[in-house]
Amino acid sequence: MKINTDPKKVDEVLSRGVEDVIVKEHLRKEMLSGKELKIYLGTDPTGGELHLGHAVIHKKLRDFQELGHKVTLLVGDFTVLVGDHSDKDDQRIELVKSQIEENMKEYKEQFGKTVDLSKVNLVYNSSWLKKLDFNDVIDLAKIFTLSQMVERDAIQKRLKEEKPVGFDELLYPLMQGFDALELKTDIQIGGSDQLFNMQAGRKIMEHYGVKPQDIITVKLLIGNDGRKMGKSLKNYIPIRSSAFDMYSGLMTIVDEAIIEYFTLLTRVLQEEISEMVKAMGEGSVNPKDLKSKLAFEVTKSFNGEKEAREAEEKFKKVVSKGEVPEDITEIELGDVGKPDSKGKIHLTTLEILVASKLNQSRSEARRMIQQGGFEINGEKITDPNQIVELKKDDVIRSGKRGFVKII
Amino acid sequence: MKINTDPKKVDEVLSRGVEDVIVKEHLRKEMLSGKELKIYLGTDPTGGELHLGHAVIHKKLRDFQELGHKVTLLVGDFTVLVGDHSDKDDQRIELVKSQIEENMKEYKEQFGKTVDLSKVNLVYNSSWLKKLDFNDVIDLAKIFTLSQMVERDAIQKRLKEEKPVGFDELLYPLMQGFDALELKTDIQIGGSDQLFNMQAGRKIMEHYGVKPQDIITVKLLIGNDGRKMGKSLKNYIPIRSSAFDMYSGLMTIVDEAIIEYFTLLTRVLQEEISEMVKAMGEGSVNPKDLKSKLAFEVTKSFNGEKEAREAEEKFKKVVSKGEVPEDITEIELGDVGKPDSKGKIHLTTLEILVASKLNQSRSEARRMIQQGGFEINGEKITDPNQIVELKKDDVIRSGKRGFVKII
Repeated sequence: MKINTDPKKVDEVLSRGVEDVIVKEHLRKEMLSGKELKIYLGTDPTGGELHLGHAVIHKKLRDFQELGHKVTLLVGDFTVLVGDHSDKDDQRIELVKSQIEENMKEYKEQFGKTVDLSKVNLVYNSSWLKKLDFNDVIDLAKIFTLSQMVERDAIQKRLKEEKPVGFDELLYPLMQGFDALELKTDIQIGGSDQLFNMQAGRKIMEHYGVKPQDIITVKLLIGNDGRKMGKSLKNYIPIRSSAFDMYSGLMTIVDEAIIEYFTLLTRVLQEEISEMVKAMGEGSVNPKDLKSKLAFEVTKSFNGEKEAREAEEKFKKVVSKGEVPEDITEIELGDVGKPDSKGKIHLTTLEILVASKLNQSRSEARRMIQQGGFEINGEKITDPNQIVELKKDDVIRSGKRGFVKII
Repeated sequence: MKINTDPKKVDEVLSRGVEDVIVKEHLRKEMLSGKELKIYLGTDPTGGELHLGHAVIHKKLRDFQELGHKVTLLVGDFTVLVGDHSDKDDQRIELVKSQIEENMKEYKEQFGKTVDLSKVNLVYNSSWLKKLDFNDVIDLAKIFTLSQMVERDAIQKRLKEEKPVGFDELLYPLMQGFDALELKTDIQIGGSDQLFNMQAGRKIMEHYGVKPQDIITVKLLIGNDGRKMGKSLKNYIPIRSSAFDMYSGLMTIVDEAIIEYFTLLTRVLQEEISEMVKAMGEGSVNPKDLKSKLAFEVTKSFNGEKEAREAEEKFKKVVSKGEVPEDITEIELGDVGKPDSKGKIHLTTLEILVASKLNQSRSEARRMIQQGGFEINGEKITDPNQIVELKKDDVIRSGKRGFVKII
């Protein structure tokens, strides 16, 4: 594939959603040279859900793929592979290995929503790290002074607060730095929390006479509570969200975050984003409309256009009326009845209200429906005996304030 | 061999020349139990001269042997064996291995002057350390916090002075601690500079559910300049000194050190040492006489009684007259002439003076001899043509202030 060296494109890739580039001038020159570059991202094979915060990096990797560069995904399976030295029986290793494969399958499913997996080089760091012995670790340690290892804010803060810092924590940068030495890629990408480890990689590469990698740190995505999006804070939107959940989730972000989300999570043209900024400044646009556009664009990129369109319609019908509370009660589909093979249940409106416990009694539920108080996904039905199809993400309403969402 | 559990003997072994015992009560109990204990000393296979400061530990190991316990000498060949990870070719390893063997031969020759080598268990830590990988190092590191690793005075001092501390220096305690875990001996012995590493061993053993070793640190021997005896300070008396050099060297220590030398380097009875202390306090003994006794006892223990006796006689004849300067000029035997198979040269007194350059000309030398100014080892000879036997350690005198020593 021919490398795209359009300076405007290169500059956008090096700035959009990017926190820092080390060394920027060097990397820019390389990207303009027409040379095919290798960029790598490291990940733990611990499995679980990725969220839109992770996707910021995935978008950046996709940018590089679209310029014609090569992406390497490094799986940090080594530390996971062996727990402690007394425990190296083959059976356990096999067990852990199959778990890692399982986790990586799950990871790739999410990673692949943004990055072209067919062009990704997947490597496992156990292939080289398992060959290092105690002396090799000592040799790596010799490249650093104690002060260099502990001067980081993350360590200093805890030392000052007299919180314990495990001595092992100081060894991980050596391990990750050795990954960089082994891979010899042109670029490593990560969050700014990975900057120290990536710098260690540069230092180790330099020490061994290898061209040091350039480093890209990406910006952090803010959750709807104004804090960094993260799993521990429960303020995140999973990459695997249904189109409707993703769309609804994006509609909850604060207006101040709209532009940042456009920048980090979409590839809407910079010019267009500049116009949005201008329009918002002038008050000539309703932020809610921009947010709808954002929600649609992001949902589209993870769930496809058709699903995004449906999610948008449903959201407008049900939620945009401004009546559905944000903290809507959720009930599981299985608690209402037994879903068929397509995940649907067919019930009368009356049965639905009773099963969802929105009304105290059958007679109250029947009266509510007949008086026009029943809605499913914003559609009013007044016949208590009409059979409707119930599925995940449906929103049921009974009266002015009674809402449940099927999950 | 039956274990000697005489409490008086045990208490002496645990106090004489001992700086600290951790945990003293525990170790005392073990020694009184009649159980055969294992004690180990670690050494680098870097070769070279050992001195009387090292012998303090050797004496202590000998004490344990005489009680019936078992000594293990651990050779730290691992770090020496492999320099850096890019350099693991077999040829180099073989080269290093043969050098290690050479060094250990030299070490044992000196160690064996005090310790009964036939009862020493010799082990090389490469046999287990080479099997550890990066994960094992991480697991060991997990047992410690960063603060625990850097709180030592040796590290803190340098940090405060802003002197660099290599990060690798923090890893050696893990390595040495793992040696302790692997050996599972009852006791480790070392200098107080090794205390941290030995404590790390205890901690690692405890972590892995192994009975933690007790620790003995020995006292430091002071050189004749009042500082710790050490090779870098050039204030040391080598274990391999000739009897005369050792005897003379010991005669240069300050009076205040006599009792400490008796305690650390001889096994003269404690009661006798107490009497010396008393006599010195009362001024009823000439310290020089005690020093002669010390020099004889120590020289005897390294060079045998006969050699010690000869050294003493020669010292008294030549040096005790108080005329031979301490900074006597030394010339090599080979520079005077070609030694025979017994290391001796036969020359006339005149030839000796000329070859040793003590006199400017043959005529001056001849006159000096005839006037009674020539002495060899304190014996005057007035015939310039008399043939004498010249060998190592002989002291030649010409006139009042001209001295050379043959080395």
